[in-house]
Amino acid sequence: MKSYRLAEIAQQLGLVLVGDAEQVIHGIAPLETAVAGEISFLADSKLVKALADSQASAFIVKPDHTIAKANYLLSDNPYLSFAQLSALFNDAPQALAGIHASAVIAKSASIGANASIAANVVIGEHVVIGNNCIIEANTVISDRCVLGDNNHLHANVTLYHNVIIGDDANIHSGTVLGSDGFGFAPSSAQYKWQKIYQLGGVRIGNNVEIGANTCIDRGALADTIIHDGVIIDNLVHIAHNCEIGKNTAIAACVGVAGSVNIGENCTFAGKVGVNGHITIADNSHFAGMTVVTGNVKEPGTYATGTAMMPIKAWRKSAVRFTQLDKMHDRVKKLEKILEENSSLSE
Amino acid sequence: MKSYRLAEIAQQLGLVLVGDAEQVIHGIAPLETAVAGEISFLADSKLVKALADSQASAFIVKPDHTIAKANYLLSDNPYLSFAQLSALFNDAPQALAGIHASAVIAKSASIGANASIAANVVIGEHVVIGNNCIIEANTVISDRCVLGDNNHLHANVTLYHNVIIGDDANIHSGTVLGSDGFGFAPSSAQYKWQKIYQLGGVRIGNNVEIGANTCIDRGALADTIIHDGVIIDNLVHIAHNCEIGKNTAIAACVGVAGSVNIGENCTFAGKVGVNGHITIADNSHFAGMTVVTGNVKEPGTYATGTAMMPIKAWRKSAVRFTQLDKMHDRVKKLEKILEENSSLSE
Amino acid sequence: MKSYRLAEIAQQLGLVLVGDAEQVIHGIAPLETAVAGEISFLADSKLVKALADSQASAFIVKPDHTIAKANYLLSDNPYLSFAQLSALFNDAPQALAGIHASAVIAKSASIGANASIAANVVIGEHVVIGNNCIIEANTVISDRCVLGDNNHLHANVTLYHNVIIGDDANIHSGTVLGSDGFGFAPSSAQYKWQKIYQLGGVRIGNNVEIGANTCIDRGALADTIIHDGVIIDNLVHIAHNCEIGKNTAIAACVGVAGSVNIGENCTFAGKVGVNGHITIADNSHFAGMTVVTGNVKEPGTYATGTAMMPIKAWRKSAVRFTQLDKMHDRVKKLEKILEENSSLSE
Repeated sequence: MKSYRLAEIAQQLGLVLVGDAEQVIHGIAPLETAVAGEISFLADSKLVKALADSQASAFIVKPDHTIAKANYLLSDNPYLSFAQLSALFNDAPQALAGIHASAVIAKSASIGANASIAANVVIGEHVVIGNNCIIEANTVISDRCVLGDNNHLHANVTLYHNVIIGDDANIHSGTVLGSDGFGFAPSSAQYKWQKIYQLGGVRIGNNVEIGANTCIDRGALADTIIHDGVIIDNLVHIAHNCEIGKNTAIAACVGVAGSVNIGENCTFAGKVGVNGHITIADNSHFAGMTVVTGNVKEPGTYATGTAMMPIKAWRKSAVRFTQLDKMHDRVKKLEKILEENSSLSE
Repeated sequence: MKSYRLAEIAQQLGLVLVGDAEQVIHGIAPLETAVAGEISFLADSKLVKALADSQASAFIVKPDHTIAKANYLLSDNPYLSFAQLSALFNDAPQALAGIHASAVIAKSASIGANASIAANVVIGEHVVIGNNCIIEANTVISDRCVLGDNNHLHANVTLYHNVIIGDDANIHSGTVLGSDGFGFAPSSAQYKWQKIYQLGGVRIGNNVEIGANTCIDRGALADTIIHDGVIIDNLVHIAHNCEIGKNTAIAACVGVAGSVNIGENCTFAGKVGVNGHITIADNSHFAGMTVVTGNVKEPGTYATGTAMMPIKAWRKSAVRFTQLDKMHDRVKKLEKILEENSSLSE
Repeated sequence: MKSYRLAEIAQQLGLVLVGDAEQVIHGIAPLETAVAGEISFLADSKLVKALADSQASAFIVKPDHTIAKANYLLSDNPYLSFAQLSALFNDAPQALAGIHASAVIAKSASIGANASIAANVVIGEHVVIGNNCIIEANTVISDRCVLGDNNHLHANVTLYHNVIIGDDANIHSGTVLGSDGFGFAPSSAQYKWQKIYQLGGVRIGNNVEIGANTCIDRGALADTIIHDGVIIDNLVHIAHNCEIGKNTAIAACVGVAGSVNIGENCTFAGKVGVNGHITIADNSHFAGMTVVTGNVKEPGTYATGTAMMPIKAWRKSAVRFTQLDKMHDRVKKLEKILEENSSLSE
């Protein structure tokens, strides 16, 4: 278990310390569950009461939130400081530089300095792996992929050929980059669907995070493009020829159909579905399970669907939904009758 | 192909046999398709007609459902007896105890008695694997994982570090346990999303089944917890810091956002989505593709969405949905007019 | 980079060439982005203007779409011809016949002529692999699977035991075939869910394509069946005992519950969910994210859900949805009042 003096933490995060610089901190915890020796943070001013009650030995707070009893690190953005702090307590195993004897690496591949290539990794012809990359066990990198520096591919990742990744990507297990886009031309042959070979690749920018068991397909003719700073969660599907703008965030189980152009700084909550061949403006946001049916020209927050109901009541509403156009006509007819009897109108 | 005398089956299942104890049974089939030499079962009393017509050589039935012609095993719960019987006819390959020469196992790892470690398995530092565990080919178990006895990890599973599993789990291929939760703090830096390192782990109880290509993320500070007896299907996403109560069942393609607390004995049909930071009572049930938008305090069955319609009619209802609030106001106005003309009211 | 004279392309595709047979073509591009040396195609007659403006050196067009300036290949179905052409420019790495030294292959397995078995592939007992199959790195094929000729399994695929595949399948990375169906009988035991061992297998026809990280479960008693010419995208779930008819197309993130019988030539857009134990007629089509709640007896196109709205307006409609049955009753009451005051009716 890692531990730091509070002064060390303050220095690492560049924060002003108020209180006992020698206090030893061995973990981070929420206000409610923190115990002595832990540090907590006040990210939401509604939790000031919890701050007063917390047993933590130190707190990251805004300068106006200190209270008498404890040790503080002062931050204009305590949640961001907490995020930075989390790196100090990360106890994930440290990969050792070097190539495991069981890795199978093509002679034409180039592996950067201090790279860590784990057991049973397979690396194809003409692959370029930058410096300080970590490739975990049983990951497969096919021919002609090019990875920049400081990329971390967890275990059991698959990169098809011609996947290009910038620097500082973090790609989780089971994820597949560069699989064929779902492109077929209908024909009258016995097997109806004539495959369209997917000749494009996948290009991924810097500082991208991609969750577990996610799929990003290669382009049909041009590339599928993920720009710098994009973060993508687990079990996401990005179809061929999509382009995802800088710093956009995509939560788990989202599916994006082909040739969608998504702007910068968008957020997609879980399980959103996006129709193909549409364009989405910068700063657009989508509630969970929204069906994005067409172009989004105005930034804003969008939703589809219905509210959750007990199933018996829901069945009635669901039936009435199928009659909505008729109900509208009935209301219109009533309005007309009353209109024609003007003595009745307000 | 396995076969048993009916008497053996009766004895294994602890059921009373009526009929020919020497009848040889070589398979199980539904009433409609069973042939001579097979055993079937009557789980739904509406199928009594099918029982009479069935060609099976024996039947598992409730005591009051026997008919003259055949051999019976009497059970108070024929469907449960069928489930138990299925184990006798399971012809999945039997893993042999032992460690394949190609497995890569850290010296500090501990492997229990009679464990079966298949080809290309990679096991990290300080991992503990209990007795009788089966770890199939190309599975990766990272540092400091602890598995109890009788766990079965199928091929190509990935466990990140600090995943703790009880006894008797069955975890299917492609599943990833312990990937990073999707935690980021927004910042004003060039790359907007500051990663929150995920310091918690994953804890899984006894007798848990997890389907293929499912993801369960590690917790941010505390652990993600799956309690005893939980069953989870394929392509499910469980985000960081969720806690799933005992014997809850989660069907395929469900996504659960972060910090959700799910009670015991709940059932989630396929493709349900659950919003983050909510609590769901014991014995809550959700229809397929329900969006669980808030806390569920009362046990019951819930749904969202609309009924399926031909697309042309659906488009009309979908447009009317966007006008629903206005339609409500129009109805209200009509009511007011009639109210103010009281001679017209009923 | 591959290149062909236009005459070679015409000959390969069986198309009439109009123009310069010696024109060298080194790539395919859409009309708008094509440059000199590339070939394009006019699949949609609305794009005739783009054809006139395109910089491509040759075009695949219908015979009535040629314009003066360029070289043409004449096709009754330019999109289909484009699909066929894409194969000529496919630059995916060519697998070399042979078995990599690190592959682990059971002695009882049979490997066909010209098969390519890559690094760390694991093949179980009594497996049969046909001629010209390509099995990419780290894929696992369990006991008693039978694959016909010309199958391509990409990296990190998992086949459980008793998966039968015809000829010419293309199966993408991370996909799992034959995992256990989600079958459990409720019991009163401590661990409520008694596993039903899944005794069936998976049978896949000829010319099937299956995307990345998709799951097809084995049957409970009989097999799960995918017929000839079916195409399936990424992250799709097909539950136990489904049968999917010839040439049906299933887009990404679709989930099909157990024992569903889907006809031929159906199409499922992304994220559709299909309830269990239903039958779907040939030539049925489903819009994205449709919930298929019951049998589909008539061919046609179906949908569910609501249109996308700004979230504030959506919240109002969502609330009104929960009151729809009451709103219907209010309209009915108004109609009755007016009816009883017949002087007011039209």
